[in-house]
Amino acid sequence: MRFIKRTGLVFLLALAFALGAAEKVKYVFLFIGDGMSMPQRMLAEDYLFKTGRGKLEINHFPYQAPTTTRSANSLITDSAASGTAIACGEKTDNGRIGMDSGAARKLPSIAETARDRGRKVGIVSSVTINHATPASFYGHRPSRGNYYEIGLDLVDSGFDYFGGGGLSSPDDRKSKEYKGNVYDLAAKQGYQVVADRAGFEALAPGGGKVLARGANDALPYAIDRTGGELTLADFTRKGIELLDNPNGFFMMVEGGKIDWVCHSNDAGTVLHEMFDFNEAVKVACDFAAKHPDETLIVVTGDHETGGLTLGFVGTGYVSKVDLLANQKCSLDAFKSRVGKAKAASFDELKPLVTECFALHFDAAKKDDLYVKPEEEAVLRAAFDRKALPMETVRLFNNKASIGWTSTAHTALPVVTSATGKKAELFQGMIDNTDIPKKLETVL
Amino acid sequence: MRFIKRTGLVFLLALAFALGAAEKVKYVFLFIGDGMSMPQRMLAEDYLFKTGRGKLEINHFPYQAPTTTRSANSLITDSAASGTAIACGEKTDNGRIGMDSGAARKLPSIAETARDRGRKVGIVSSVTINHATPASFYGHRPSRGNYYEIGLDLVDSGFDYFGGGGLSSPDDRKSKEYKGNVYDLAAKQGYQVVADRAGFEALAPGGGKVLARGANDALPYAIDRTGGELTLADFTRKGIELLDNPNGFFMMVEGGKIDWVCHSNDAGTVLHEMFDFNEAVKVACDFAAKHPDETLIVVTGDHETGGLTLGFVGTGYVSKVDLLANQKCSLDAFKSRVGKAKAASFDELKPLVTECFALHFDAAKKDDLYVKPEEEAVLRAAFDRKALPMETVRLFNNKASIGWTSTAHTALPVVTSATGKKAELFQGMIDNTDIPKKLETVL
Repeated sequence: MRFIKRTGLVFLLALAFALGAAEKVKYVFLFIGDGMSMPQRMLAEDYLFKTGRGKLEINHFPYQAPTTTRSANSLITDSAASGTAIACGEKTDNGRIGMDSGAARKLPSIAETARDRGRKVGIVSSVTINHATPASFYGHRPSRGNYYEIGLDLVDSGFDYFGGGGLSSPDDRKSKEYKGNVYDLAAKQGYQVVADRAGFEALAPGGGKVLARGANDALPYAIDRTGGELTLADFTRKGIELLDNPNGFFMMVEGGKIDWVCHSNDAGTVLHEMFDFNEAVKVACDFAAKHPDETLIVVTGDHETGGLTLGFVGTGYVSKVDLLANQKCSLDAFKSRVGKAKAASFDELKPLVTECFALHFDAAKKDDLYVKPEEEAVLRAAFDRKALPMETVRLFNNKASIGWTSTAHTALPVVTSATGKKAELFQGMIDNTDIPKKLETVL
Repeated sequence: MRFIKRTGLVFLLALAFALGAAEKVKYVFLFIGDGMSMPQRMLAEDYLFKTGRGKLEINHFPYQAPTTTRSANSLITDSAASGTAIACGEKTDNGRIGMDSGAARKLPSIAETARDRGRKVGIVSSVTINHATPASFYGHRPSRGNYYEIGLDLVDSGFDYFGGGGLSSPDDRKSKEYKGNVYDLAAKQGYQVVADRAGFEALAPGGGKVLARGANDALPYAIDRTGGELTLADFTRKGIELLDNPNGFFMMVEGGKIDWVCHSNDAGTVLHEMFDFNEAVKVACDFAAKHPDETLIVVTGDHETGGLTLGFVGTGYVSKVDLLANQKCSLDAFKSRVGKAKAASFDELKPLVTECFALHFDAAKKDDLYVKPEEEAVLRAAFDRKALPMETVRLFNNKASIGWTSTAHTALPVVTSATGKKAELFQGMIDNTDIPKKLETVL
């Protein structure tokens, strides 16, 4: 009986696999949180938990695969090598965009494969659209710094939709390949180039290829939005609207500023970038709910940034991550306000420190946000060497039980999450180069 | 055609599931790396990669499930609450052993369930056998500090095999429940109590219940072994030998000292503890290779310890994790040697620093292990405040691109890895309380 049961099981599973393997997926979403590994994901989830707001959806997709990220020349990858691995399925040296380690071969990307198989293709990012991660899906250049040339590759890609941040160096006249402003070249190639909200909202299916930006460079930090700015979710929603067609589409959406704020070790701002990214993924989830048998959503990170940890020597076994709710602006915005204040002494800036982080100096109220005399001395010294903003954020993070060990990336694996049709491809320990190989089988 | 294919697929999968769900697994192994999360796993794997020695087996089991760990009263769990979650499937407060948050209810453990279903049961740990993690599988006490009383629970458990470290407080006459030395009580209950290597080697199946220790408290650190000491792998191998029987067995094996050395932020010693743990898992894998359709191996961690990161601000995008090869003894052993040296000045200890870590002070040889004047000043100041050992290890770790942010645990999820029969139960994002519920279905 046991033998019969086992044989029957194997046979049925094999048959199911054979039937399943041939199936393609009409709508494929690939979300990349730049600098997003498990610490960043859990930071957001712990915060939601402590403030009674549930779970972070992306952390609870039915399939979750730890994913190694090393590049061809370093255990610690940069975003170019990891972008190329995720887009093209091959390890390359840090810095390369869509080319091999020796910068001799152009590597075809999964987005190009999708295009060549008749899918519409969209590329969205909250940072500049020719930055390393989005660039890896259409660019083929020896260096991520070849912004202008990557811009030329964008124009040549023929992809249907670029949305989010603007172009870096769109008019670099020093380039050996200079042939005009990239926006103009895009327009000549038939792209509708849109740079304002009205133009963005007017975009509709059937209007041809689109290059739409919500800002001249990167989108503003979520925590610093004043209202009305286009978000990553807006660009994702528009992408779906523009790309939907009987042959299906492939869309890559990058939450690029998670990385930027992890580089500056600013956990409160990371939180809001994580929520923004999660909101963009939820737009795809809503679409998938309407097309359940035709949609695959994959969410990954390209590497960990900052050596973020969810515990600090000063707070021991107690996590006070909910204190991050007191942060009112990004480190960048705080830095700018400190600069504008032109304060002659640290004491003049105390009200600003309190306004932005709720850190206070009132010895009569020794709560979690009280700055002790020895901590105040550290801030005072930081003011003297013009490092007050960074030191304030460090103190605030540590009070919230958050630690950081680097201003660069680390070698921690990321996690790839998947839901929808063929999501089961993403399980076990995988490597970032496996991602496009798996996606290729469903396109 | 598409509809027929899809319906057929769903039907076959449902049938396969129904056939599969009823199946039990004869041999169930649960390995717990205390303090082992993804950073600890990847530290070991990166080191193996950089030194050309392949992968860490446990990281490449076919199923890998990120696993949340918070306790009932803290985002940051201790080993008692996480041990209870993994053993009993219920969240409890930090400190509790096999009891609910209110310390009102004793929670049945998966090991007790296995025993009650006729399986033989083994509990192995490299630390004391009544320490929080192993205790959670047989003990039911309000506090992890109730060592003597937990020892009484051990004697009453009727489990077939306890192996590894000895008992803490085996003869605590201050206990309200004192009734004699726990080792004597165990002997009276029919346990063979073995405390030396010869006795251990003589242990054979059919000799009744066993309580075997390789040291009076915890086993020595792997990096400090001088030869001949029993290892976690030895105790695992013996467990298999003693427990194998027609009704199968459940064995929990804890690598407990990963946590201890993460508390002291000593990455070089962590490495060797990780390798030792991995070797113990490989003993189970070898057994599974002989019983492929009857064995399930699950490897998890109970929490992350130390806020370990694989990158440091001073080394940027370059990982020098291979420098850890230069460490010759644990921080504890180094501390003891520094103490014995009774040095009057830091300079007297320089040769010892060089002997144990290959850190050197030769300005003519400015390699990765050269201690710069400003770093030397830090060590010198640490000597003055009697903190030289810790500061030396910190410097050594940072040179190897390793950062730490806490001497306690953190809220980072762990990863649960599974291979063998029914391993597919372990996928997606799970919680530590799910582990015994899943195991229960196969016992």
